[in-house]
Amino acid sequence: MQIDRIKYQGYKDKIITAEQAAALFKDKMTVGSSGFTKAGDSKAVLPAFATRAANEDIAITLITGASLGHTTDSDLARADALYKRMPFQVDSVLREKINNGSVFFIDQHLSETAELLNNKHLPPLDIAIIEASQIDSQGNIIPTTSIGNSATFAKLANKVIIEINTSIPINFKGIHDIVIPGEYPVRDILPITSVNTRIGKEYIHVDPEKVAGIVFTELPDSPAQETSSDDKTEAIANHLITFFENEVKSGRLTESLLPLQAGIGKIANAVLSGFSKGNFKHLTMYSEVLQDSTFELIDSGIMDFASASSITVSKSCYDHLMANFDDYKDKIILRPQNISNAPEVIRRLGVIAINTAIEFDIYGNVNSTHITGSKMMNGIGGSGDFARNAYLSIFVCPSVSKQDNAISHVLPMVSHVDHTEHDVDILVTENGLADLRGLAPRERALQIINNCVHPDYREVIQSYYERACERGGHTPHLLEEAFSWHLNYVNNGTMKALCTAENS
Amino acid sequence: MQIDRIKYQGYKDKIITAEQAAALFKDKMTVGSSGFTKAGDSKAVLPAFATRAANEDIAITLITGASLGHTTDSDLARADALYKRMPFQVDSVLREKINNGSVFFIDQHLSETAELLNNKHLPPLDIAIIEASQIDSQGNIIPTTSIGNSATFAKLANKVIIEINTSIPINFKGIHDIVIPGEYPVRDILPITSVNTRIGKEYIHVDPEKVAGIVFTELPDSPAQETSSDDKTEAIANHLITFFENEVKSGRLTESLLPLQAGIGKIANAVLSGFSKGNFKHLTMYSEVLQDSTFELIDSGIMDFASASSITVSKSCYDHLMANFDDYKDKIILRPQNISNAPEVIRRLGVIAINTAIEFDIYGNVNSTHITGSKMMNGIGGSGDFARNAYLSIFVCPSVSKQDNAISHVLPMVSHVDHTEHDVDILVTENGLADLRGLAPRERALQIINNCVHPDYREVIQSYYERACERGGHTPHLLEEAFSWHLNYVNNGTMKALCTAENS
Repeated sequence: MQIDRIKYQGYKDKIITAEQAAALFKDKMTVGSSGFTKAGDSKAVLPAFATRAANEDIAITLITGASLGHTTDSDLARADALYKRMPFQVDSVLREKINNGSVFFIDQHLSETAELLNNKHLPPLDIAIIEASQIDSQGNIIPTTSIGNSATFAKLANKVIIEINTSIPINFKGIHDIVIPGEYPVRDILPITSVNTRIGKEYIHVDPEKVAGIVFTELPDSPAQETSSDDKTEAIANHLITFFENEVKSGRLTESLLPLQAGIGKIANAVLSGFSKGNFKHLTMYSEVLQDSTFELIDSGIMDFASASSITVSKSCYDHLMANFDDYKDKIILRPQNISNAPEVIRRLGVIAINTAIEFDIYGNVNSTHITGSKMMNGIGGSGDFARNAYLSIFVCPSVSKQDNAISHVLPMVSHVDHTEHDVDILVTENGLADLRGLAPRERALQIINNCVHPDYREVIQSYYERACERGGHTPHLLEEAFSWHLNYVNNGTMKALCTAENS
Repeated sequence: MQIDRIKYQGYKDKIITAEQAAALFKDKMTVGSSGFTKAGDSKAVLPAFATRAANEDIAITLITGASLGHTTDSDLARADALYKRMPFQVDSVLREKINNGSVFFIDQHLSETAELLNNKHLPPLDIAIIEASQIDSQGNIIPTTSIGNSATFAKLANKVIIEINTSIPINFKGIHDIVIPGEYPVRDILPITSVNTRIGKEYIHVDPEKVAGIVFTELPDSPAQETSSDDKTEAIANHLITFFENEVKSGRLTESLLPLQAGIGKIANAVLSGFSKGNFKHLTMYSEVLQDSTFELIDSGIMDFASASSITVSKSCYDHLMANFDDYKDKIILRPQNISNAPEVIRRLGVIAINTAIEFDIYGNVNSTHITGSKMMNGIGGSGDFARNAYLSIFVCPSVSKQDNAISHVLPMVSHVDHTEHDVDILVTENGLADLRGLAPRERALQIINNCVHPDYREVIQSYYERACERGGHTPHLLEEAFSWHLNYVNNGTMKALCTAENS
């Protein structure tokens, strides 16, 4: 029975339809919604609002944890229902609207959105929509497969709409650890000293007075795309595993390494899966997202515990987890994203951060977000939270892509900087690994050219570097030529051949 | 008596000359030395080593807290005594060697050097040189006007040389608070919850067995340059004071604001002094450096307490402080730079960070280090530690400089990125203040163009922005033209007139 999922009497007359909930939205409102890497998102109210907005002149600022699942961001973008969107997205329709300037997007460190809301550096929240598996006897929310910014949304919003998702098993609880840092000027320490430290509650507190409606849904999360590794991702994973084995041999790390963080997607999954090949034991994770590879490592007994803000897995992994939840309950924890990504905890635990780059340059600057300097891809996500504060900050990407290797992802200068040279320790492509620790820019350039660049581009990038050095500087560049590879690609569809010629 | 400054018997036969100490250095050694923004640096041993190296083929890797005083970095650079230098410098001779590639320089976040040493991501330390005012009965060091990385150097180095500086009054103690975070995987919380929380010892622990020599010196710190504000710095300070007054009016801040951090130099000093004009009370500071303006605010009763890693003040301020030390003792604290700049503490306290930019662009990216993309100026210092984790991240600079305003410091695209758009809240020039909070890139561009750009450049930058928008993108750019202002300056000595033409 749906109604059994509501243990708080005062909510029983608040059950409304998704359409009734969507009718509460007004033009220019700021709405916070649960949802982090497609997990635990609003599956009823936001889609209903998209439908409403398709026939009405209404647009909101929508703040989430991270990306939404299903076609929600597409539907909202097509309906011109979004005035502003933050802090992350992965949707192709929304992306186009962002890039043509019709939706304002703020690309934020995922740890910071809750901070900015708490500090009133963003507009006040009118409505929060939060997915729940059930409601306890005090009216508090038991969240589902993600926490994201939901606790902060519930605290700050004027009105709260709860979406109870009946596809989530009723025993799916006890893995959430909710805490909200105090208000300035007096803020508590986050006393997490191990990946499995619990510091909060198992529920999201909400003031029942603010609850404007309860909506039921039974739609599960969008599954993560099943990815199979290919030669390049295998090679990248192998370079990294060899690196870690050497770190253990050198005595800098033990076979348990330090808590791992990995970005989402094919390469990160392949790298994590790669740990099953080495002699690693008692691994742990302090990350944003639990992926298929996390559960593989737990199943094979190599990983002891994993902390994140969401669970984003394939359908088969999801079904297995839900059917065997009690077996995993003591091995995973979900935290608010300002805790999973807190600089304080990341530095204290000494996290090893592995994230994907769009491109990087010969001095170690990384672009995670923009195509040819202008066009947003997805967003920085939590990569900055982790890379800056990590014990080791690792970025991976293929050295080239497209037919005939038309795009080199290793460049003289990146067209947009998300992670500066100060924050990058290790760069890996399928060609090899550049260990930048303790190196000055000119030393880094040689490491990167010798190890990471695709052979098709090595001679040309070496020429750029040598000619730049003749001109001098701590970080030698030829500004008139620095973006010539990108411009060549824009104008001629390839970074090759003309790369050393003048622009255009 | 000099000897009275050594309370530990075992050291009394270890007194040597600076030359004898410098003779302990071997080629390719890694040496850590006290010294942070000219305060508490080695004034005997490093200069003696420079003299030795002038006639010998020997070079070391030198790691300090931050910049050294007197002509030490010049002398070392001229003698080709430096193979590698980190994490910061401000010396014109050394700068030239860095930029012509003859000294490798690593430009590091000041909080990270001790981390990298502890994690063995830098070579092992052969020798540490640490300035002391005296040595206690256990052989521990009472530091002088800075702490910097000295505690970590003393812990990790094979040999320790102590420079006892007799120009420091014997009562100059009790303001130091020394703690070293534990080793991974188990590291302690830094339990600082207020600017004045003490968590450590008043001395730097050193193993007496490692002490290779004690050297006496009586040379005081190089004084900070006395700076007088000018119209531009006054205007910048006034814009900021008005901004803070409005934040208090809006209720986001109280008249005590939150702990302040300010970079060094003329603008930062003017901004801090400006706080005496508003209705601010009970201000506090959680910063890197205590400057003249800090003591002015303490003297005028506006500032209650200031925490930093060094005291770098003018001669008159220095003399006054040393003569009246007991009056200030309970109002200041010095910490290791990995504590003064710890992300954990900065975010917990909600620090307001005010730093100087070399240039910034229309989307809010900041360059703090490089001239025309290649030439190192000083280094990023602690600006990244603070900007990333601050409650508010503010960058200031004049809109233009040089005769006929030949250089614009507000540009279409910065030539080097130290602080990304994700980490910058407020930008200020003498023309005005751009409040970027909650704004998407295209909104930021309008704020910056309307408020910060010098009128001489407004039309041209507006044209760049509009033409870039026609081409589209989340962060619209014309890559072929993005550096045309810098190239115009390099080729024609001005950013004016030709700025919209093709490169060169």
